[in-house]
Amino acid sequence: MSDFRTANTDFVQTVRDSFYKQGLMRLLGATLEVVEPGYVSIRMPFSESLTQQHGYFHAGTVTSIVDSACGYAALTLMPAGAEVLTVEFKVNFMAPASGEYVIAHGRVLKPGRTITVCMGEVLEVKDGVEKPCVTMLATMISR
Amino acid sequence: MSDFRTANTDFVQTVRDSFYKQGLMRLLGATLEVVEPGYVSIRMPFSESLTQQHGYFHAGTVTSIVDSACGYAALTLMPAGAEVLTVEFKVNFMAPASGEYVIAHGRVLKPGRTITVCMGEVLEVKDGVEKPCVTMLATMISR
Amino acid sequence: MSDFRTANTDFVQTVRDSFYKQGLMRLLGATLEVVEPGYVSIRMPFSESLTQQHGYFHAGTVTSIVDSACGYAALTLMPAGAEVLTVEFKVNFMAPASGEYVIAHGRVLKPGRTITVCMGEVLEVKDGVEKPCVTMLATMISR
Amino acid sequence: MSDFRTANTDFVQTVRDSFYKQGLMRLLGATLEVVEPGYVSIRMPFSESLTQQHGYFHAGTVTSIVDSACGYAALTLMPAGAEVLTVEFKVNFMAPASGEYVIAHGRVLKPGRTITVCMGEVLEVKDGVEKPCVTMLATMISR
Repeated sequence: MSDFRTANTDFVQTVRDSFYKQGLMRLLGATLEVVEPGYVSIRMPFSESLTQQHGYFHAGTVTSIVDSACGYAALTLMPAGAEVLTVEFKVNFMAPASGEYVIAHGRVLKPGRTITVCMGEVLEVKDGVEKPCVTMLATMISR
Repeated sequence: MSDFRTANTDFVQTVRDSFYKQGLMRLLGATLEVVEPGYVSIRMPFSESLTQQHGYFHAGTVTSIVDSACGYAALTLMPAGAEVLTVEFKVNFMAPASGEYVIAHGRVLKPGRTITVCMGEVLEVKDGVEKPCVTMLATMISR
Repeated sequence: MSDFRTANTDFVQTVRDSFYKQGLMRLLGATLEVVEPGYVSIRMPFSESLTQQHGYFHAGTVTSIVDSACGYAALTLMPAGAEVLTVEFKVNFMAPASGEYVIAHGRVLKPGRTITVCMGEVLEVKDGVEKPCVTMLATMISR
Repeated sequence: MSDFRTANTDFVQTVRDSFYKQGLMRLLGATLEVVEPGYVSIRMPFSESLTQQHGYFHAGTVTSIVDSACGYAALTLMPAGAEVLTVEFKVNFMAPASGEYVIAHGRVLKPGRTITVCMGEVLEVKDGVEKPCVTMLATMISR
Protein backbone atom coordinates (compact mmCIF):
# COMPACT_ATOMS: atom_id res chain seq x y z
CA MET A 1 0.00 0.00 0.00
CA SER A 2 2.74 2.37 1.06
CA ASP A 3 4.14 2.10 -2.45
CA PHE A 4 1.62 4.59 -3.75
CA ARG A 5 1.87 8.38 -3.61
CA THR A 6 -1.13 10.58 -4.25
CA ALA A 7 -1.29 14.17 -5.48
CA ASN A 8 -4.64 14.68 -3.71
CA THR A 9 -3.70 15.61 -0.13
CA ASP A 10 -7.40 15.52 0.73
CA PHE A 11 -7.99 11.99 -0.54
CA VAL A 12 -9.51 10.70 2.70
CA GLN A 13 -12.13 13.44 2.74
CA THR A 14 -12.74 12.99 -1.00
CA VAL A 15 -13.53 9.32 -0.48
CA ARG A 16 -15.64 9.86 2.67
CA ASP A 17 -17.75 12.59 1.02
CA SER A 18 -18.41 10.40 -1.99
CA PHE A 19 -19.10 7.26 0.03
CA TYR A 20 -21.79 8.91 2.11
CA LYS A 21 -23.55 10.12 -1.06
CA GLN A 22 -24.10 6.49 -2.08
CA GLY A 23 -27.68 5.66 -1.13
CA LEU A 24 -26.90 1.98 -1.61
CA MET A 25 -24.16 1.84 1.02
CA ARG A 26 -26.68 3.16 3.59
CA LEU A 27 -29.31 0.67 2.44
CA LEU A 28 -26.83 -2.20 2.80
CA GLY A 29 -25.64 -0.93 6.22
CA ALA A 30 -22.09 -0.69 4.85
CA THR A 31 -19.48 1.49 6.54
CA LEU A 32 -16.19 2.87 5.30
CA GLU A 33 -13.28 1.48 7.31
CA VAL A 34 -9.72 2.22 6.17
CA VAL A 35 -8.74 4.74 3.47
CA GLU A 36 -5.08 4.80 2.41
CA PRO A 37 -3.34 5.66 -0.87
CA GLY A 38 -4.34 2.84 -3.21
CA TYR A 39 -6.35 0.95 -0.58
CA VAL A 40 -9.90 1.13 0.85
CA SER A 41 -11.88 -1.29 3.03
CA ILE A 42 -15.64 -1.45 3.62
CA ARG A 43 -17.54 -3.47 6.21
CA MET A 44 -21.10 -4.82 5.99
CA PRO A 45 -22.93 -6.59 8.85
CA PHE A 46 -25.15 -9.59 8.09
CA SER A 47 -28.88 -9.00 7.78
CA GLU A 48 -31.70 -11.16 6.43
CA SER A 49 -32.49 -8.43 3.94
CA LEU A 50 -29.14 -9.05 2.22
CA THR A 51 -29.63 -12.74 1.50
CA GLN A 52 -30.04 -15.00 -1.48
CA GLN A 53 -32.33 -18.03 -1.41
CA HIS A 54 -30.10 -20.17 0.84
CA GLY A 55 -29.64 -17.53 3.54
CA TYR A 56 -26.10 -16.44 2.55
CA PHE A 57 -25.12 -12.92 1.54
CA HIS A 58 -26.44 -12.40 -2.01
CA ALA A 59 -23.61 -12.26 -4.59
CA GLY A 60 -24.85 -8.77 -5.45
CA THR A 61 -24.30 -7.41 -1.94
CA VAL A 62 -20.69 -8.51 -1.62
CA THR A 63 -20.08 -7.40 -5.20
CA SER A 64 -21.52 -3.97 -4.34
CA ILE A 65 -19.13 -3.32 -1.47
CA VAL A 66 -16.04 -4.70 -3.18
CA ASP A 67 -16.85 -2.64 -6.30
CA SER A 68 -17.07 0.45 -4.07
CA ALA A 69 -13.84 -0.51 -2.28
CA CYS A 70 -12.00 -0.90 -5.60
CA GLY A 71 -13.44 2.29 -7.07
CA TYR A 72 -12.45 4.32 -4.01
CA ALA A 73 -9.00 2.71 -3.89
CA ALA A 74 -8.55 4.03 -7.45
CA LEU A 75 -9.97 7.43 -6.48
CA THR A 76 -7.38 7.91 -3.72
CA LEU A 77 -4.68 8.14 -6.40
CA MET A 78 -6.52 10.46 -8.76
CA PRO A 79 -6.05 14.24 -8.78
CA ALA A 80 -8.44 16.36 -6.68
CA GLY A 81 -11.71 16.92 -8.53
CA ALA A 82 -11.49 13.71 -10.55
CA GLU A 83 -14.39 11.27 -10.65
CA VAL A 84 -14.13 7.51 -10.83
CA LEU A 85 -16.41 5.17 -12.77
CA THR A 86 -16.41 1.38 -13.02
CA VAL A 87 -15.68 0.27 -16.60
CA GLU A 88 -16.07 -3.41 -15.78
CA PHE A 89 -15.24 -6.07 -13.25
CA LYS A 90 -15.08 -9.84 -12.90
CA VAL A 91 -15.83 -11.61 -9.66
CA ASN A 92 -15.20 -15.20 -8.55
CA PHE A 93 -17.29 -16.57 -5.71
CA MET A 94 -15.03 -19.04 -3.94
CA ALA A 95 -17.25 -19.79 -0.96
CA PRO A 96 -20.73 -18.68 0.15
CA ALA A 97 -20.43 -15.71 2.55
CA SER A 98 -22.19 -15.71 5.89
CA GLY A 99 -20.81 -14.78 9.32
CA GLU A 100 -21.45 -11.76 11.52
CA TYR A 101 -20.10 -9.43 8.88
CA VAL A 102 -18.04 -9.30 5.74
CA ILE A 103 -15.17 -6.98 4.93
CA ALA A 104 -14.17 -5.90 1.42
CA HIS A 105 -10.63 -4.85 0.56
CA GLY A 106 -9.97 -2.87 -2.63
CA ARG A 107 -6.39 -2.39 -3.82
CA VAL A 108 -4.86 -0.67 -6.81
CA LEU A 109 -2.76 -3.03 -8.91
CA LYS A 110 -1.81 -0.54 -11.61
CA PRO A 111 -2.67 3.16 -11.49
CA GLY A 112 -2.91 5.16 -14.69
CA ARG A 113 -3.93 8.57 -15.97
CA THR A 114 -7.09 7.17 -17.59
CA ILE A 115 -7.40 3.51 -16.58
CA THR A 116 -6.71 2.06 -13.11
CA VAL A 117 -6.69 -1.72 -12.53
CA CYS A 118 -7.76 -2.92 -9.08
CA MET A 119 -7.94 -6.19 -7.20
CA GLY A 120 -10.55 -6.76 -4.52
CA GLU A 121 -11.47 -9.44 -2.07
CA VAL A 122 -14.25 -10.06 0.41
CA LEU A 123 -13.72 -12.01 3.62
CA GLU A 124 -16.49 -13.28 5.88
CA VAL A 125 -15.83 -12.90 9.61
CA LYS A 126 -17.43 -15.57 11.83
CA ASP A 127 -16.50 -15.98 15.51
CA GLY A 128 -13.45 -13.84 14.83
CA VAL A 129 -12.20 -16.10 12.02
CA GLU A 130 -11.72 -14.60 8.55
CA LYS A 131 -12.37 -16.62 5.40
CA PRO A 132 -11.87 -15.39 1.80
CA CYS A 133 -15.12 -15.66 -0.19
CA VAL A 134 -14.82 -13.39 -3.21
CA THR A 135 -12.05 -12.17 -5.54
CA MET A 136 -12.55 -9.24 -7.94
CA LEU A 137 -10.45 -7.95 -10.82
CA ALA A 138 -11.73 -4.52 -11.90
CA THR A 139 -11.08 -1.74 -14.38
CA MET A 140 -11.80 1.83 -13.28
CA ILE A 141 -11.74 5.01 -15.36
CA SER A 142 -11.03 8.58 -14.29
CA ARG A 143 -12.82 11.57 -15.72
CA MET B 1 -35.41 -18.89 -26.12
CA SER B 2 -37.80 -21.48 -27.49
CA ASP B 3 -34.79 -23.60 -28.40
CA PHE B 4 -34.51 -24.91 -24.87
CA ARG B 5 -36.41 -27.83 -23.38
CA THR B 6 -36.53 -28.43 -19.65
CA ALA B 7 -37.08 -31.65 -17.72
CA ASN B 8 -38.52 -29.69 -14.77
CA THR B 9 -42.19 -29.19 -15.64
CA ASP B 10 -42.53 -27.03 -12.54
CA PHE B 11 -39.70 -24.66 -13.47
CA VAL B 12 -41.80 -21.48 -13.14
CA GLN B 13 -42.82 -22.35 -9.59
CA THR B 14 -39.26 -23.42 -8.76
CA VAL B 15 -37.93 -20.03 -9.80
CA ARG B 16 -40.73 -18.04 -8.13
CA ASP B 17 -40.31 -19.88 -4.81
CA SER B 18 -36.56 -19.29 -4.82
CA PHE B 19 -36.82 -15.65 -5.92
CA TYR B 20 -39.13 -14.74 -3.06
CA LYS B 21 -36.72 -16.27 -0.55
CA GLN B 22 -34.08 -13.72 -1.58
CA GLY B 23 -34.12 -11.00 1.06
CA LEU B 24 -32.11 -8.78 -1.24
CA MET B 25 -34.66 -8.74 -4.07
CA ARG B 26 -37.26 -7.41 -1.58
CA LEU B 27 -34.82 -4.82 -0.24
CA LEU B 28 -34.08 -3.62 -3.78
CA GLY B 29 -37.78 -3.59 -4.71
CA ALA B 30 -37.08 -6.02 -7.54
CA THR B 31 -39.84 -8.12 -9.07
CA LEU B 32 -39.73 -11.25 -11.17
CA GLU B 33 -41.18 -10.64 -14.62
CA VAL B 34 -40.91 -13.36 -17.27
CA VAL B 35 -39.80 -16.96 -16.63
CA GLU B 36 -39.27 -19.17 -19.69
CA PRO B 37 -36.98 -22.13 -20.39
CA GLY B 38 -33.52 -20.58 -20.50
CA TYR B 39 -34.76 -17.01 -19.93
CA VAL B 40 -35.70 -14.85 -16.92
CA SER B 41 -36.29 -11.12 -16.55
CA ILE B 42 -36.34 -8.98 -13.40
CA ARG B 43 -37.48 -5.38 -12.97
CA MET B 44 -36.26 -2.82 -10.43
CA PRO B 45 -37.78 0.67 -10.01
CA PHE B 46 -35.49 3.63 -9.32
CA SER B 47 -35.08 4.77 -5.73
CA GLU B 48 -32.60 7.10 -4.07
CA SER B 49 -31.58 4.26 -1.80
CA LEU B 50 -30.14 2.40 -4.80
CA THR B 51 -27.76 5.11 -5.96
CA GLN B 52 -24.04 5.66 -6.23
CA GLN B 53 -22.46 9.06 -5.60
CA HIS B 54 -23.69 10.68 -8.84
CA GLY B 55 -27.33 9.67 -8.40
CA TYR B 56 -27.35 6.78 -10.88
CA PHE B 57 -28.19 3.18 -10.01
CA HIS B 58 -25.15 1.77 -8.15
CA ALA B 59 -23.25 -0.81 -10.23
CA GLY B 60 -23.98 -3.28 -7.44
CA THR B 61 -27.76 -2.98 -7.77
CA VAL B 62 -27.91 -3.66 -11.47
CA THR B 63 -25.34 -6.42 -11.04
CA SER B 64 -27.53 -7.98 -8.32
CA ILE B 65 -30.61 -8.26 -10.50
CA VAL B 66 -28.80 -9.42 -13.64
CA ASP B 67 -26.92 -12.04 -11.58
CA SER B 68 -30.29 -13.27 -10.27
CA ALA B 69 -31.77 -13.23 -13.78
CA CYS B 70 -28.86 -15.28 -15.15
CA GLY B 71 -28.88 -17.71 -12.22
CA TYR B 72 -32.62 -18.32 -12.57
CA ALA B 73 -32.36 -18.65 -16.36
CA ALA B 74 -29.87 -21.46 -15.69
CA LEU B 75 -32.15 -22.97 -13.01
CA THR B 76 -35.08 -23.27 -15.44
CA LEU B 77 -33.12 -25.91 -17.37
CA MET B 78 -31.91 -27.90 -14.38
CA PRO B 79 -33.68 -31.01 -13.05
CA ALA B 80 -36.26 -30.56 -10.27
CA GLY B 81 -34.54 -30.32 -6.89
CA ALA B 82 -31.29 -28.88 -8.29
CA GLU B 83 -29.78 -25.75 -6.83
CA VAL B 84 -27.90 -23.08 -8.75
CA LEU B 85 -24.86 -21.12 -7.56
CA THR B 86 -22.90 -18.36 -9.25
CA VAL B 87 -19.31 -19.47 -9.93
CA GLU B 88 -18.29 -16.12 -11.37
CA PHE B 89 -19.39 -13.32 -13.64
CA LYS B 90 -17.97 -10.37 -15.54
CA VAL B 91 -19.93 -7.19 -16.12
CA ASN B 92 -19.31 -4.24 -18.45
CA PHE B 93 -20.97 -0.95 -17.61
CA MET B 94 -21.61 0.69 -20.96
CA ALA B 95 -23.66 3.65 -19.74
CA PRO B 96 -24.79 4.90 -16.32
CA ALA B 97 -28.30 3.58 -15.55
CA SER B 98 -31.05 5.92 -14.44
CA GLY B 99 -34.66 6.15 -15.68
CA GLU B 100 -37.93 5.14 -14.02
CA TYR B 101 -36.81 1.56 -13.80
CA VAL B 102 -34.31 -0.94 -15.14
CA ILE B 103 -34.98 -4.39 -16.51
CA ALA B 104 -32.50 -7.27 -16.43
CA HIS B 105 -32.61 -10.10 -18.96
CA GLY B 106 -30.79 -13.36 -18.22
CA ARG B 107 -30.35 -15.92 -20.99
CA VAL B 108 -28.67 -19.30 -21.17
CA LEU B 109 -25.95 -19.43 -23.82
CA LYS B 110 -24.83 -22.99 -23.17
CA PRO B 111 -26.55 -25.35 -20.74
CA GLY B 112 -24.62 -28.22 -19.20
CA ARG B 113 -24.95 -30.93 -16.59
CA THR B 114 -22.54 -29.14 -14.23
CA ILE B 115 -21.72 -25.74 -15.76
CA THR B 116 -24.17 -23.39 -17.48
CA VAL B 117 -22.95 -20.26 -19.29
CA CYS B 118 -25.31 -17.27 -19.34
CA MET B 119 -25.44 -13.85 -20.93
CA GLY B 120 -27.26 -11.00 -19.23
CA GLU B 121 -28.08 -7.40 -19.96
CA VAL B 122 -29.68 -4.52 -18.13
CA LEU B 123 -31.67 -1.82 -19.90
CA GLU B 124 -32.78 1.43 -18.34
CA VAL B 125 -36.30 2.55 -19.24
CA LYS B 126 -36.85 6.32 -19.34
CA ASP B 127 -40.02 7.87 -20.82
CA GLY B 128 -40.74 4.53 -22.43
CA VAL B 129 -37.35 4.39 -24.19
CA GLU B 130 -35.03 1.46 -23.49
CA LYS B 131 -31.25 1.87 -23.43
CA PRO B 132 -28.72 -0.94 -22.82
CA CYS B 133 -26.48 -0.14 -19.84
CA VAL B 134 -24.90 -3.37 -18.67
CA THR B 135 -23.70 -6.64 -20.24
CA MET B 136 -22.89 -9.73 -18.15
CA LEU B 137 -21.18 -13.00 -19.04
CA ALA B 138 -21.66 -15.50 -16.22
CA THR B 139 -20.83 -19.07 -15.19
CA MET B 140 -23.38 -20.94 -13.08
CA ILE B 141 -23.02 -24.33 -11.40
CA SER B 142 -25.68 -26.88 -10.53
CA ARG B 143 -25.60 -29.00 -7.40
CA MET C 1 -23.72 -4.38 -38.02
CA SER C 2 -25.19 -1.88 -40.45
CA ASP C 3 -26.14 0.27 -37.45
CA PHE C 4 -22.63 1.66 -37.21
CA ARG C 5 -21.18 4.58 -39.18
CA THR C 6 -17.48 5.26 -39.28
CA ALA C 7 -15.59 8.50 -39.90
CA ASN C 8 -12.62 6.56 -41.30
CA THR C 9 -13.48 5.98 -44.97
CA ASP C 10 -10.32 3.87 -45.24
CA PHE C 11 -11.21 1.54 -42.38
CA VAL C 12 -10.82 -1.67 -44.42
CA GLN C 13 -7.30 -0.75 -45.44
CA THR C 14 -6.48 0.40 -41.90
CA VAL C 15 -7.47 -2.98 -40.51
CA ARG C 16 -5.73 -4.99 -43.28
CA ASP C 17 -2.46 -3.08 -42.87
CA SER C 18 -2.47 -3.61 -39.12
CA PHE C 19 -3.50 -7.26 -39.31
CA TYR C 20 -0.61 -8.18 -41.59
CA LYS C 21 1.85 -6.53 -39.19
CA GLN C 22 0.87 -9.04 -36.50
CA GLY C 23 3.57 -11.71 -36.50
CA LEU C 24 1.31 -13.94 -34.43
CA MET C 25 -1.50 -14.09 -36.99
CA ARG C 26 1.00 -15.41 -39.54
CA LEU C 27 2.40 -17.93 -37.06
CA LEU C 28 -1.12 -19.19 -36.31
CA GLY C 29 -2.03 -19.30 -40.02
CA ALA C 30 -4.92 -16.92 -39.38
CA THR C 31 -6.48 -14.90 -42.19
CA LEU C 32 -8.64 -11.82 -42.15
CA GLU C 33 -12.08 -12.53 -43.60
CA VAL C 34 -14.79 -9.85 -43.37
CA VAL C 35 -14.22 -6.22 -42.32
CA GLU C 36 -17.34 -4.05 -41.87
CA PRO C 37 -18.08 -1.08 -39.64
CA GLY C 38 -18.16 -2.56 -36.14
CA TYR C 39 -17.53 -6.13 -37.30
CA VAL C 40 -14.48 -8.24 -38.20
CA SER C 41 -14.04 -11.98 -38.71
CA ILE C 42 -10.85 -14.07 -38.71
CA ARG C 43 -10.34 -17.68 -39.78
CA MET C 44 -7.76 -20.18 -38.52
CA PRO C 45 -7.26 -23.69 -39.94
CA PHE C 46 -6.52 -26.59 -37.60
CA SER C 47 -2.90 -27.62 -37.16
CA GLU C 48 -1.19 -29.88 -34.63
CA SER C 49 1.02 -26.97 -33.66
CA LEU C 50 -2.04 -25.16 -32.26
CA THR C 51 -3.15 -27.83 -29.83
CA GLN C 52 -3.42 -28.32 -26.10
CA GLN C 53 -2.74 -31.67 -24.45
CA HIS C 54 -5.93 -33.39 -25.66
CA GLY C 55 -5.50 -32.44 -29.31
CA TYR C 56 -8.05 -29.60 -29.40
CA PHE C 57 -7.23 -26.00 -30.31
CA HIS C 58 -5.41 -24.50 -27.30
CA ALA C 59 -7.54 -21.93 -25.46
CA GLY C 60 -4.81 -19.40 -26.21
CA THR C 61 -5.12 -19.79 -29.98
CA VAL C 62 -8.84 -19.19 -30.18
CA THR C 63 -8.46 -16.37 -27.65
CA SER C 64 -5.77 -14.80 -29.86
CA ILE C 65 -7.95 -14.62 -32.95
CA VAL C 66 -11.11 -13.49 -31.17
CA ASP C 67 -9.10 -10.79 -29.35
CA SER C 68 -7.80 -9.58 -32.72
CA ALA C 69 -11.32 -9.74 -34.22
CA CYS C 70 -12.73 -7.65 -31.35
CA GLY C 71 -9.86 -5.16 -31.42
CA TYR C 72 -10.21 -4.63 -35.16
CA ALA C 73 -14.00 -4.39 -34.92
CA ALA C 74 -13.39 -1.50 -32.49
CA LEU C 75 -10.74 0.01 -34.78
CA THR C 76 -13.16 0.19 -37.74
CA LEU C 77 -15.16 2.83 -35.82
CA MET C 78 -12.20 4.92 -34.66
CA PRO C 79 -10.93 8.01 -36.49
CA ALA C 80 -8.12 7.57 -39.04
CA GLY C 81 -4.75 7.43 -37.31
CA ALA C 82 -6.14 6.04 -34.04
CA GLU C 83 -4.62 2.97 -32.46
CA VAL C 84 -6.49 0.29 -30.54
CA LEU C 85 -5.27 -1.58 -27.47
CA THR C 86 -6.92 -4.34 -25.45
CA VAL C 87 -7.63 -3.17 -21.88
CA GLU C 88 -9.01 -6.53 -20.80
CA PHE C 89 -11.23 -9.40 -21.85
CA LYS C 90 -13.06 -12.35 -20.39
CA VAL C 91 -13.58 -15.58 -22.28
CA ASN C 92 -15.86 -18.55 -21.62
CA PHE C 93 -14.95 -21.88 -23.20
CA MET C 94 -18.25 -23.61 -23.83
CA ALA C 95 -16.95 -26.57 -25.80
CA PRO C 96 -13.52 -27.79 -26.90
CA ALA C 97 -12.76 -26.52 -30.43
CA SER C 98 -11.60 -28.88 -33.12
CA GLY C 99 -12.82 -29.19 -36.73
CA GLU C 100 -11.16 -28.23 -40.01
CA TYR C 101 -11.01 -24.62 -38.97
CA VAL C 102 -12.43 -22.10 -36.53
CA ILE C 103 -13.86 -18.70 -37.28
CA ALA C 104 -13.85 -15.77 -34.85
CA HIS C 105 -16.43 -12.97 -35.02
CA GLY C 106 -15.76 -9.67 -33.25
CA ARG C 107 -18.60 -7.16 -32.88
CA VAL C 108 -18.83 -3.74 -31.26
CA LEU C 109 -21.49 -3.62 -28.58
CA LYS C 110 -20.91 -0.03 -27.52
CA PRO C 111 -18.52 2.33 -29.26
CA GLY C 112 -17.06 5.28 -27.39
CA ARG C 113 -14.51 8.04 -27.76
CA THR C 114 -12.12 6.35 -25.33
CA ILE C 115 -13.57 2.94 -24.43
CA THR C 116 -15.23 0.49 -26.84
CA VAL C 117 -16.99 -2.63 -25.56
CA CYS C 118 -16.99 -5.67 -27.87
CA MET C 119 -18.49 -9.13 -27.94
CA GLY C 120 -16.75 -11.98 -29.68
CA GLU C 121 -17.39 -15.61 -30.45
CA VAL C 122 -15.50 -18.48 -31.97
CA LEU C 123 -17.21 -21.26 -33.91
CA GLU C 124 -15.58 -24.50 -34.96
CA VAL C 125 -16.45 -25.71 -38.46
CA LYS C 126 -16.46 -29.49 -38.93
CA ASP C 127 -17.89 -31.15 -42.06
CA GLY C 128 -19.58 -27.83 -42.85
CA VAL C 129 -21.36 -27.67 -39.48
CA GLU C 130 -20.73 -24.67 -37.21
CA LYS C 131 -20.66 -25.01 -33.43
CA PRO C 132 -20.12 -22.14 -30.96
CA CYS C 133 -17.12 -22.83 -28.71
CA VAL C 134 -16.04 -19.54 -27.17
CA THR C 135 -17.67 -16.29 -26.05
CA MET C 136 -15.64 -13.15 -25.30
CA LEU C 137 -16.62 -9.86 -23.65
CA ALA C 138 -13.83 -7.31 -24.18
CA THR C 139 -12.87 -3.71 -23.41
CA MET C 140 -10.79 -1.84 -25.99
CA ILE C 141 -9.18 1.59 -25.69
CA SER C 142 -8.37 4.10 -28.40
CA ARG C 143 -5.28 6.28 -28.34
CA MET D 1 2.59 -21.98 -2.16
CA SER D 2 3.74 -24.31 0.57
CA ASP D 3 0.22 -24.12 2.00
CA PHE D 4 -1.03 -26.68 -0.47
CA ARG D 5 -0.80 -30.48 -0.16
CA THR D 6 -1.42 -32.75 -3.09
CA ALA D 7 -2.57 -36.37 -3.19
CA ASN D 8 -0.77 -36.91 -6.52
CA THR D 9 2.82 -37.73 -5.55
CA ASP D 10 3.70 -37.72 -9.25
CA PHE D 11 2.35 -34.23 -9.90
CA VAL D 12 5.58 -32.89 -11.43
CA GLN D 13 5.68 -35.69 -14.00
CA THR D 14 1.94 -35.34 -14.65
CA VAL D 15 2.38 -31.66 -15.51
CA ARG D 16 5.56 -32.19 -17.59
CA ASP D 17 3.97 -34.97 -19.65
CA SER D 18 0.90 -32.86 -20.37
CA PHE D 19 2.86 -29.68 -21.10
CA TYR D 20 4.98 -31.36 -23.76
CA LYS D 21 1.84 -32.67 -25.49
CA GLN D 22 0.74 -29.07 -26.13
CA GLY D 23 1.68 -28.28 -29.72
CA LEU D 24 1.13 -24.61 -29.02
CA MET D 25 3.76 -24.36 -26.28
CA ARG D 26 6.36 -25.66 -28.75
CA LEU D 27 5.18 -23.27 -31.45
CA LEU D 28 5.48 -20.34 -29.02
CA GLY D 29 8.88 -21.52 -27.79
CA ALA D 30 7.54 -21.70 -24.24
CA THR D 31 9.26 -23.81 -21.57
CA LEU D 32 8.04 -25.13 -18.28
CA GLU D 33 10.00 -23.67 -15.39
CA VAL D 34 8.86 -24.35 -11.82
CA VAL D 35 6.20 -26.91 -10.80
CA GLU D 36 5.13 -26.91 -7.13
CA PRO D 37 1.87 -27.81 -5.39
CA GLY D 38 -0.52 -25.05 -6.46
CA TYR D 39 2.09 -23.15 -8.51
CA VAL D 40 3.53 -23.36 -12.02
CA SER D 41 5.66 -20.95 -14.06
CA ILE D 42 6.27 -20.84 -17.81
CA ARG D 43 8.83 -18.81 -19.76
CA MET D 44 8.59 -17.53 -23.34
CA PRO D 45 11.41 -15.73 -25.20
CA PHE D 46 10.61 -12.81 -27.48
CA SER D 47 10.30 -13.48 -31.19
CA GLU D 48 8.94 -11.41 -34.06
CA SER D 49 6.51 -14.19 -34.80
CA LEU D 50 4.76 -13.53 -31.47
CA THR D 51 3.97 -9.88 -32.02
CA GLN D 52 0.94 -7.69 -32.50
CA GLN D 53 0.96 -4.71 -34.84
CA HIS D 54 3.17 -2.48 -32.66
CA GLY D 55 5.90 -5.07 -32.12
CA TYR D 56 4.93 -6.08 -28.57
CA PHE D 57 4.00 -9.61 -27.53
CA HIS D 58 0.46 -10.23 -28.84
CA ALA D 59 -2.12 -10.36 -26.04
CA GLY D 60 -2.92 -13.89 -27.19
CA THR D 61 0.62 -15.16 -26.62
CA VAL D 62 0.91 -13.99 -23.03
CA THR D 63 -2.65 -15.16 -22.42
CA SER D 64 -1.73 -18.61 -23.77
CA ILE D 65 1.14 -19.14 -21.37
CA VAL D 66 -0.60 -17.73 -18.31
CA ASP D 67 -3.67 -19.89 -19.08
CA SER D 68 -1.39 -22.93 -19.24
CA ALA D 69 0.38 -21.88 -16.02
CA CYS D 70 -2.96 -21.51 -14.19
CA GLY D 71 -4.36 -24.76 -15.57
CA TYR D 72 -1.27 -26.71 -14.54
CA ALA D 73 -1.19 -25.04 -11.12
CA ALA D 74 -4.72 -26.40 -10.67
CA LEU D 75 -3.68 -29.83 -12.01
CA THR D 76 -0.91 -30.19 -9.39
CA LEU D 77 -3.60 -30.42 -6.70
CA MET D 78 -5.91 -32.82 -8.50
CA PRO D 79 -5.86 -36.60 -7.97
CA ALA D 80 -3.71 -38.73 -10.30
CA GLY D 81 -5.52 -39.37 -13.57
CA ALA D 82 -7.62 -36.20 -13.41
CA GLU D 83 -7.75 -33.83 -16.36
CA VAL D 84 -8.02 -30.06 -16.18
CA LEU D 85 -9.99 -27.81 -18.52
CA THR D 86 -10.32 -24.02 -18.58
CA VAL D 87 -13.92 -22.96 -17.90
CA GLU D 88 -13.17 -19.27 -18.35
CA PHE D 89 -10.69 -16.55 -17.57
CA LYS D 90 -10.42 -12.79 -17.48
CA VAL D 91 -7.21 -10.95 -18.25
CA ASN D 92 -6.19 -7.33 -17.69
CA PHE D 93 -3.35 -5.94 -19.79
CA MET D 94 -1.64 -3.40 -17.58
CA ALA D 95 1.32 -2.64 -19.81
CA PRO D 96 2.49 -3.79 -23.25
CA ALA D 97 4.93 -6.71 -22.88
CA SER D 98 8.27 -6.68 -24.62
CA GLY D 99 11.73 -7.51 -23.22
CA GLU D 100 13.99 -10.50 -23.81
CA TYR D 101 11.39 -12.85 -22.43
CA VAL D 102 8.22 -13.00 -20.36
CA ILE D 103 7.47 -15.27 -17.45
CA ALA D 104 3.98 -16.40 -16.45
CA HIS D 105 3.12 -17.42 -12.88
CA GLY D 106 -0.04 -19.44 -12.21
CA ARG D 107 -1.22 -19.87 -8.62
CA VAL D 108 -4.19 -21.63 -7.06
CA LEU D 109 -6.34 -19.27 -5.01
CA LYS D 110 -8.99 -21.80 -4.03
CA PRO D 111 -8.78 -25.50 -4.82
CA GLY D 112 -11.96 -27.56 -5.02
CA ARG D 113 -13.18 -31.01 -5.96
CA THR D 114 -14.80 -29.72 -9.16
CA ILE D 115 -13.86 -26.04 -9.54
CA THR D 116 -10.42 -24.50 -8.88
CA VAL D 117 -9.93 -20.73 -8.93
CA CYS D 118 -6.48 -19.47 -10.01
CA MET D 119 -4.68 -16.17 -10.26
CA GLY D 120 -2.01 -15.60 -12.85
CA GLU D 121 0.40 -12.88 -13.84
CA VAL D 122 2.88 -12.26 -16.61
CA LEU D 123 6.05 -10.24 -16.11
CA GLU D 124 8.29 -9.00 -18.88
CA VAL D 125 12.02 -9.27 -18.22
CA LYS D 126 14.19 -6.60 -19.84
CA ASP D 127 17.86 -6.12 -18.93
CA GLY D 128 17.21 -8.22 -15.83
CA VAL D 129 14.36 -5.99 -14.64
CA GLU D 130 10.90 -7.53 -14.14
CA LYS D 131 7.73 -5.58 -14.84
CA PRO D 132 4.15 -6.88 -14.34
CA CYS D 133 2.18 -6.72 -17.58
CA VAL D 134 -0.82 -9.03 -17.25
CA THR D 135 -3.13 -10.24 -14.48
CA MET D 136 -5.45 -13.22 -14.93
CA LEU D 137 -8.31 -14.54 -12.79
CA ALA D 138 -9.33 -18.00 -14.01
CA THR D 139 -11.76 -20.83 -13.33
CA MET D 140 -10.57 -24.39 -13.98
CA ILE D 141 -12.60 -27.61 -13.86
CA SER D 142 -11.45 -31.15 -13.08
CA ARG D 143 -12.80 -34.19 -14.83
